[in-house]
Amino acid sequence: MANHKRGRQSFALQEPPVITTWASVAGKKESEGPLAHTFDLKTKDTYFGQKTWEQAEKYMQQQALKKLAENAGMTLSDFDLVFSGDLLNQCIGSSFTLRNLGIPHLGLYGACSTMAESLLMASMAVGGGFADKVVAMTSSHFASSERQYRFPLGYGGQRTPTAQWTVTGSGAALVCSQGKGPRISACTIGTVTDLGIMDANNMGAAMAPAAYATIRAHFEDMKTAPEDFDLIVTGDLGQLGKEMLLELAKRDGVALGGKLTDCGTLVFDNTKQDVHAGGSGCGCSAITLCGYLLGQLKEGKLKKILFCGTGALLSPTSTQQGLPIPGVCHAVCITGGR
Amino acid sequence: MANHKRGRQSFALQEPPVITTWASVAGKKESEGPLAHTFDLKTKDTYFGQKTWEQAEKYMQQQALKKLAENAGMTLSDFDLVFSGDLLNQCIGSSFTLRNLGIPHLGLYGACSTMAESLLMASMAVGGGFADKVVAMTSSHFASSERQYRFPLGYGGQRTPTAQWTVTGSGAALVCSQGKGPRISACTIGTVTDLGIMDANNMGAAMAPAAYATIRAHFEDMKTAPEDFDLIVTGDLGQLGKEMLLELAKRDGVALGGKLTDCGTLVFDNTKQDVHAGGSGCGCSAITLCGYLLGQLKEGKLKKILFCGTGALLSPTSTQQGLPIPGVCHAVCITGGR
Repeated sequence: MANHKRGRQSFALQEPPVITTWASVAGKKESEGPLAHTFDLKTKDTYFGQKTWEQAEKYMQQQALKKLAENAGMTLSDFDLVFSGDLLNQCIGSSFTLRNLGIPHLGLYGACSTMAESLLMASMAVGGGFADKVVAMTSSHFASSERQYRFPLGYGGQRTPTAQWTVTGSGAALVCSQGKGPRISACTIGTVTDLGIMDANNMGAAMAPAAYATIRAHFEDMKTAPEDFDLIVTGDLGQLGKEMLLELAKRDGVALGGKLTDCGTLVFDNTKQDVHAGGSGCGCSAITLCGYLLGQLKEGKLKKILFCGTGALLSPTSTQQGLPIPGVCHAVCITGGR
Repeated sequence: MANHKRGRQSFALQEPPVITTWASVAGKKESEGPLAHTFDLKTKDTYFGQKTWEQAEKYMQQQALKKLAENAGMTLSDFDLVFSGDLLNQCIGSSFTLRNLGIPHLGLYGACSTMAESLLMASMAVGGGFADKVVAMTSSHFASSERQYRFPLGYGGQRTPTAQWTVTGSGAALVCSQGKGPRISACTIGTVTDLGIMDANNMGAAMAPAAYATIRAHFEDMKTAPEDFDLIVTGDLGQLGKEMLLELAKRDGVALGGKLTDCGTLVFDNTKQDVHAGGSGCGCSAITLCGYLLGQLKEGKLKKILFCGTGALLSPTSTQQGLPIPGVCHAVCITGGR
């Protein structure tokens, strides 16, 4: 058997699957941000021509999947399997995207960790010989997310300083056994971690402990350390969550400082775009990975990154019932190259 | 590489993973039904001593996981990985169950197909060498489901004749590379299939086309036929959906007749329990598999079954926005033996 479980939470891929192609679709605010030049498709219309925000989110995933096929020189029917999920209740963004396309589909729920979770599962499917040409995909939409988790936008509610801005965007990556591109060499599966954060407007704080638990597990299981990476990139901790993660690591004697960044701090320019603590949502790490990061890895500007998808596993019901916010983080080690 | 993709949607496991242990937790109505003797834990309290139905659902999963460890002679920390999901918004039943247990967790969303989807993913993880001692788990709860998808029970709404009764229950199965018990020899991944059914009170009709598509794909990909199985068991089509599936197969020249059954028709006694079209929900196929079916396979009374989890991928939002109900079905071939 070529693949191996490593330690408590990780596995290594003897023949690392290749991310041969990727595609990103970005909303209006994201298309005005610092990573705009790295996205495949940009829009000025938050509805993407659809009647509802939920349908707009589905449309983004459809466009990401279509663009992925185009970038790969394939048709949709060449895809063997799609792993996808999103934040909408019952993951309707993903399910309705795949409707009647005839592509085998396994649905995930990992909240904002979905880009990493879907890549991790795609690497299992490809690395284990169960499928090839496997798509990892997710999306989020600011407006569908706000009305589902917080308040309808029409209420004009004031956002707290700790609040993050849900990214409107979708990212898709194609994982194959053969080909050229960045490779997935190892993955670490997260545990559900809850230190009792109760504030649904401070997701970064809720997710930081899970992020640190997974990053530490990756180092232990894979016998590696921060200095082995060019970047350690969390999904959507935002400015506050990133600072908390640095603090947690520091107290544990681990210096992440020079290596750590967060997609939530990369995707918007907080000095100009007024997003408070930064970006969030499944789409945050998805478009940052399937735009900027994989581009840098392909060009050899990054050699090795640890991509750590972070998710807050709350629902409005759990919050209303007075429960804290559990977090999870899945990590995928990606090495550069053509 | 020992494992192989077969055809468009399936894969075979060269060294079939073993379902060494299983556990089931059943609600009040289920504990009064024809399969009562096969469940590990039964209750007369629909709240399971909790304050809310959502918390009751979480409690059922916790009990199923605990009982699974007990049945296996293990502790929770012996489990390598849990694949689980449920029907609650943002899968809070599963996430809160795994909170702070330190067990690696990958969340799924496959609606009522989750027992089959989680078994399929567990067989990938074990068969590919990525993990061992992997748990596949899910749950549903009649009361949490009714108020989320339809009406609060306090409204006393009248149920339509096509309506099914969401099973209150949780099932968990342990999948290992070694050991004694039924084995997973092949799996077929479903495609999202939508023939335009709009009635959220007729889920059986919405899921039947997906069920037939997956069963037919399994036969084609694996070069097999109905006569090779003792039973072909769908998850929760109920009486009407089962009849539709038989009709779809008949028109296509495939005689499923003597082999087909459905967990939704097994779990309740419709002559006495007034459940209209039968049982449904993630828990329906979960407790039927992790009670009756795996028991029969272990004892050699069944030699080979095709377990077909069926899911309706709707949300109240998609229904309110006038969209039809897409269905999905994932199939797992399980062979008997000690």
